[in-house]
Amino acid sequence: MSSLPLTSRTRLRRLPDRGSQDRALIYQILDEGLVCHVSFVHAAHPVVLPMAYVRVDDSIYLHGSTKNRMLDVLGAGAPCCVAVTLLDGLVLARSQFHHSMNYRSVALFAQAEDVTDPERKALVLAALCEHLVVGRSSVSRAPTRQELGGTRVLGLPIVEASAKCRSGPALDSAEDLSLPYWAGVLPLALRAGAPIADAQLAPGVPIPEVLLSHGGAGRAV
Amino acid sequence: MSSLPLTSRTRLRRLPDRGSQDRALIYQILDEGLVCHVSFVHAAHPVVLPMAYVRVDDSIYLHGSTKNRMLDVLGAGAPCCVAVTLLDGLVLARSQFHHSMNYRSVALFAQAEDVTDPERKALVLAALCEHLVVGRSSVSRAPTRQELGGTRVLGLPIVEASAKCRSGPALDSAEDLSLPYWAGVLPLALRAGAPIADAQLAPGVPIPEVLLSHGGAGRAV
Repeated sequence: MSSLPLTSRTRLRRLPDRGSQDRALIYQILDEGLVCHVSFVHAAHPVVLPMAYVRVDDSIYLHGSTKNRMLDVLGAGAPCCVAVTLLDGLVLARSQFHHSMNYRSVALFAQAEDVTDPERKALVLAALCEHLVVGRSSVSRAPTRQELGGTRVLGLPIVEASAKCRSGPALDSAEDLSLPYWAGVLPLALRAGAPIADAQLAPGVPIPEVLLSHGGAGRAV
Repeated sequence: MSSLPLTSRTRLRRLPDRGSQDRALIYQILDEGLVCHVSFVHAAHPVVLPMAYVRVDDSIYLHGSTKNRMLDVLGAGAPCCVAVTLLDGLVLARSQFHHSMNYRSVALFAQAEDVTDPERKALVLAALCEHLVVGRSSVSRAPTRQELGGTRVLGLPIVEASAKCRSGPALDSAEDLSLPYWAGVLPLALRAGAPIADAQLAPGVPIPEVLLSHGGAGRAV
């Protein structure tokens, strides 16, 4: 896969080696995340909101009710910036100053494009289910025409984007290494617990294997 | 604790019962989160970036190098919006349409105030360490005068803020309840793995109890 072009908005001024325009890395982060934070300007003020999203090919997609005001603003062509952040660990240094976090993040600058074709909308919404749980779109009811009509889908092309990551140990100064304080990394990850079945499940409906095998064992559901 | 005032920016137009101005709930979410997303307007475009933060009393605090350009923008009085989002689970409905997520989130609208008093800065930075791991500020080296001088701390007063939460089961339509699809909630939480000790630890430095007891058992470290 290619690299995205560096722009004035995606070039890191500080710690530039934490930044990357590598498309494969950017897609990996986008595919692992579940929630993005979408920022836009409304009435001259910045607003940021958490949203579900999914990447399909070279775009990410947001969706919501056709009455959603944020989608109105974005759909009208307002520029937006989307962040996806995966927190990988706490970096505990001997010095408070060098405490940090390990993370992988993406920032995407884009203008939204309305997805109006019903088939394309259905494809994106199915992909969104697959993004939550692999295989989910084939063990759930597809949207009706009315549901599709009430759902707005916006695409954000991945053209101007960058990844920023930190990994590895604490970076204390040499003179602090002998201090009598524990230093290291506490890994963090979003993990799934035991699935909670709906109280009104139809009789005999089995729990999908994928939920059982991943329950408690990580977010790769 | 009190409720914050509703404003045109913190009132939810849709699903208003998911919103709250309850200060106790807002603080609970802020205290559980580790990363916030800060949005601001730069050169007429929205920008959103992940940041560490900590709440102390009725403000949240950001920090970074005095060379940090985002802190320059915010410190000059640019309005900002900060989101903290805790993802609690995937809501798997029988219909794709009713798939959702359980979450608790806060949106805060504020203008930053520079914290310049060195003692106050040191207090906030110690609180930031405590926010990562309880007790951490007393088992790490406090910042030197030079480190404090190189660190900028900005406070954002919690005056205009709201919480938005979803919890509970999938909300399929009555006519979908008998569909032969599994429905339920897959709980998600940020969890800690086994701590990774620094390769150059001073001899005989023990691992803090709090990291051992919480390793793998959740983020309440």
